[in-house]
Amino acid sequence: MPHVTPPATQLIEALRGAVGDAHVLVEDDMRAPFEIDWTRRWSGRAAAVVQPGTTEAVAAVLRACGDHDVAVVPQGGNTGLVGAGVPRGGPADGSERREQVVLSMTRLVGLDDVDAASMQVSAGAGVTLGALQVHARAAGLDAGVDFGARDSATLGALVACDAGGIRALRHGTVRARVAGLEAVLADGQVVRRMSGLLKDNAGYDLPALLTGSEGTLGVITRVRWRLVPRHDARALALIPLPGLADAAPLLRAVRPRLASLDACEFLTDDGLGLVLEHLGVPAPVEPRAPAYVLLEAAATADPLPDLADALEAAGIEDAVIADDSASRERLWRLRESHTEAISAAGVPHKLDVGVPLDALAPFCDAVRDAMPAGARTIVFGHLGDGNVHVNVLGPDPADGSVDETVLRLVAEHGGTISAEHGVGVAKARFLHLTRSDAEIAAMGAIKAALDPRGILNPGAVISERTAAG
Amino acid sequence: MPHVTPPATQLIEALRGAVGDAHVLVEDDMRAPFEIDWTRRWSGRAAAVVQPGTTEAVAAVLRACGDHDVAVVPQGGNTGLVGAGVPRGGPADGSERREQVVLSMTRLVGLDDVDAASMQVSAGAGVTLGALQVHARAAGLDAGVDFGARDSATLGALVACDAGGIRALRHGTVRARVAGLEAVLADGQVVRRMSGLLKDNAGYDLPALLTGSEGTLGVITRVRWRLVPRHDARALALIPLPGLADAAPLLRAVRPRLASLDACEFLTDDGLGLVLEHLGVPAPVEPRAPAYVLLEAAATADPLPDLADALEAAGIEDAVIADDSASRERLWRLRESHTEAISAAGVPHKLDVGVPLDALAPFCDAVRDAMPAGARTIVFGHLGDGNVHVNVLGPDPADGSVDETVLRLVAEHGGTISAEHGVGVAKARFLHLTRSDAEIAAMGAIKAALDPRGILNPGAVISERTAAG
Repeated sequence: MPHVTPPATQLIEALRGAVGDAHVLVEDDMRAPFEIDWTRRWSGRAAAVVQPGTTEAVAAVLRACGDHDVAVVPQGGNTGLVGAGVPRGGPADGSERREQVVLSMTRLVGLDDVDAASMQVSAGAGVTLGALQVHARAAGLDAGVDFGARDSATLGALVACDAGGIRALRHGTVRARVAGLEAVLADGQVVRRMSGLLKDNAGYDLPALLTGSEGTLGVITRVRWRLVPRHDARALALIPLPGLADAAPLLRAVRPRLASLDACEFLTDDGLGLVLEHLGVPAPVEPRAPAYVLLEAAATADPLPDLADALEAAGIEDAVIADDSASRERLWRLRESHTEAISAAGVPHKLDVGVPLDALAPFCDAVRDAMPAGARTIVFGHLGDGNVHVNVLGPDPADGSVDETVLRLVAEHGGTISAEHGVGVAKARFLHLTRSDAEIAAMGAIKAALDPRGILNPGAVISERTAAG
Repeated sequence: MPHVTPPATQLIEALRGAVGDAHVLVEDDMRAPFEIDWTRRWSGRAAAVVQPGTTEAVAAVLRACGDHDVAVVPQGGNTGLVGAGVPRGGPADGSERREQVVLSMTRLVGLDDVDAASMQVSAGAGVTLGALQVHARAAGLDAGVDFGARDSATLGALVACDAGGIRALRHGTVRARVAGLEAVLADGQVVRRMSGLLKDNAGYDLPALLTGSEGTLGVITRVRWRLVPRHDARALALIPLPGLADAAPLLRAVRPRLASLDACEFLTDDGLGLVLEHLGVPAPVEPRAPAYVLLEAAATADPLPDLADALEAAGIEDAVIADDSASRERLWRLRESHTEAISAAGVPHKLDVGVPLDALAPFCDAVRDAMPAGARTIVFGHLGDGNVHVNVLGPDPADGSVDETVLRLVAEHGGTISAEHGVGVAKARFLHLTRSDAEIAAMGAIKAALDPRGILNPGAVISERTAAG
C-alpha cells in the first residue's frame, strides 16, 4: 500500500517549508501561550503556531493556508481584549470549524533609522510600541501613541485595530500615525506603500482600509510610522468634581484655551477607591469627590502657566497639580492601575465603548442603573475621546446579557460599541447595534472581495453568519 | 397606437422626481458650464445636470440612474485638474458610452456650529473651503487646509480626492481632517458616521475608504471636519539657494528645530521669472538664485525668533524675512501666482506628482532633460511633501507622450503619479506605473464589490479596461 500523508501533516510540512522547522510550533505546551488571551476569556485550538521572520515568509504561510483551506489568526503581542488574536473556540461551541493556524508576528522586529525630514520611521509589524517610543525619543521625537500595554503590544496589531490610548485627544488614533503599510493579502500577494509620501492619492488608500480591519482583510507586515514632536515639559492636574456630569463642561471650557492639552481622562470614586486599596497608597485629595478629571498639558516649554490659566478660566479652584515627574507618575499610576485593581477584585465584564461627550455622564448612569442588584459598576476612560471603559463586577462572567445590555445603552446614547479595542469576535454579533445594515453589507462585500475564501481571521469583525449570508 | 416615452425622457422625469423640476438642467446652455473643466482640457456631454439639495435627493438620483443604467459624475466646485468631475469625452473617442448625469453638489451648503470640545464641525459637501475657513476662524480655530482654489473648491470634493495644499506638512492631507462622513452608495443606500467620535473602530472604516476614492465608490454628502488650533502669529522666509539639490538638506536641518513649521514650498528661477513678468513686480531678492525655498512658521506667539534660530542652525545667512501680513502676502503671491503666470504663457502639460524628498532635485533634472528641444519646463511645489507640480510649455497639449515620460520618471524615482490632485480619468491608464498589479486588482475588487454595475464615475481612478477585466 502506498503511504498517504494525512492532510494535517501536509499542512505542517507546507508551513515548515514556509517559515523553517524551528518556527512552526505544534506541541501542546509550545502552542498553549498563543492559544489563550491574557484575560483568559478567549481561547481555542490551533493546528500550529507559526513565527515567520520575513514578509516573504508571511506570504508563504498565507499561500500554504489557502492551499489547505485553513484559517489564519494573526497575532501580535497578544494583549487584545476582544478575542481577535487567538484561535476561535473549539468544538465546545458546536460548530464544525476549519483548522486554524496562529500567525505570530513578533519576529518582524526590524526598525529603521528615523528620517528627520519626514519625521517618519519604518518598522516591522512585531516591533513593540515601547521599543518604538524609545527609538523615537532618541531621535528627538515621539511615537504619538501611548497606553499601558506598551511593552507587549506590537505595531502591526496596533494598526490592525486602530488603537487609541491616552494621547489620541491630541494626536489622533493610530490611524493618524500610519504614513504607509506593507501587508500580505489573503492570496499571498504583497501590497506595499512604504515610501512615506505625505501626499499620495493615486488610487484607493489600501493602508487606510487595512487600518482597523483587525487582520480580516490582510496581514500587516511593516508600518511606516508618522512621529510627532517630543514634548518633554509636562504638567498634570487632578480635578475633583461634584459629579461625572461636570466633566464635559470642564473639557469644553478648557480645550479652546489650552493648545498644549495632551490627555484628558476621567475616573470615579468607586474606581479610585479600588485602586487605592490595591496599591496601598493614600488618596491624592481629601475630601474625596464623586468624580475626577486628569488633565495633562505638554509642550517644549513649561506648560504649567497655561494649564493654570485654563483651569482658572474654567472656574476650577480646587485641583492637585503635579509638575515634577515623580508626582506626575504617582497620579498617572492611579489612572493606569484601574485595570489591574479591578481584575484583582474579580473577573469583570469589560467593555470598551464610546459615546458623544455630552452623553457620557447619562450613559454611565444608565449602565449603573441597568446592572443587576449587587453588581459593582466601575467606569473610567478617556474623556476627551468620549471613550468609556465599563467594568462590571459581580454577574457571572459567562452571562452574555450584561454585555448586550451595556452595548444597547451605547446605541441608545448615539455611541459606538468599540472605541479602541476593536470588535474582534467578542462584539461581531453586536455590530448591527451601531452600524446600519447598509454599512454592514458594504463591509461584508469588501471582505468577500478581498478574501473570497474567508481564511483571514474568520469570525472577527464580520460575524460568520453575515459572512456566509 | 399607444404613446411610448423614450428612455431619455423617462430618465429626465425620474430625475425631476428626485430633485424637483427646477434642479434638473437639460438645455445645452444650462449644462455647458458643468460639462467642461476650468482648464478646458476635459469635457463631455451629459444627459442632464442635477442639483440636489438634500442627502435624500442625492440617494434618489443614484437610484434613478441605477434604474436607467446611467453613469453618475459627481461634481463639486469644478476646480479639479484630472477630468474626474466632468462627463467623459463624447463619441469622438470612438467608444459607445452610457448616458452620463452630472451630480452637482453645490447646493448642500449646511454648516453647523463649531463644537469647541471636539474641535469639529459638520458641513454639507457643497460648502466651500473658504466658507469653512471663515467659519472656523470665527470660532477661534482653523480649517487646517489651504490652497489657491479655496473659494470654489467644495469640501465633498476635497475629501473625495484627499486634497493636500500648503498646510499638509503640518496638519496632513484632507484625510487627517475627516472625523466622519455621510455618503450615498451606488445602490442609493446612505451610510452615515457623523457623531465625530475620535475613537470608533467598530468595523471597517468606510469614511477612510471613501476618502480619496474620487466619487467612484460613493457620493459624499456631508463631512464631519476636524479643525486645528488657530495660529495667527506667522513669519515667512524666502531663502535663495544655489540649486534645487540644496532644498532637501535645508528642510532636513530646519524641521527638527522648528515645531511651528507650517509650510515649506520650493520654486525655481524659471518659474519666478514668469511670475514677476506676469505680475509686473520687482524680484524679492537680488541677485536672483537658481532655486528658492519658502518657509513659514506659525504659532500662537510670534514664531520669528524660532524661525531665525532654525535658519541660523541650518547655516542660512541670506534670506528675505516677512513678518508682517502685507510682506507675507507679497511673498506668498509669488508662489501662488505660478499657475496663472504659466497659463498666461501658453497651454501647459500639467502634472501633479510626488517623489521622496531626496529624489526631488534629481527627478526635476531628469524631467527637464527628457523634454523635447524648445520645451520650457517649470517645476514648483510643496517641498515638505515631496509634491512637485510639473508644467511643460511648448509641446502640443494633445501630445500624450509628454505626460507618459514624466510619469515614468516619477516611477523610476520611487514616487507617486498623483500627489494631491487625484488620478481622475487623466491618469487612470498610468496607475500601474506606481501601483502593483496586486494593488490594482484589490482596488478593482473593491470597486466591483461596492458598485457592481459601475455607475459611479466610470473611468476615473480605475481605467474602464481594468474594471471590465
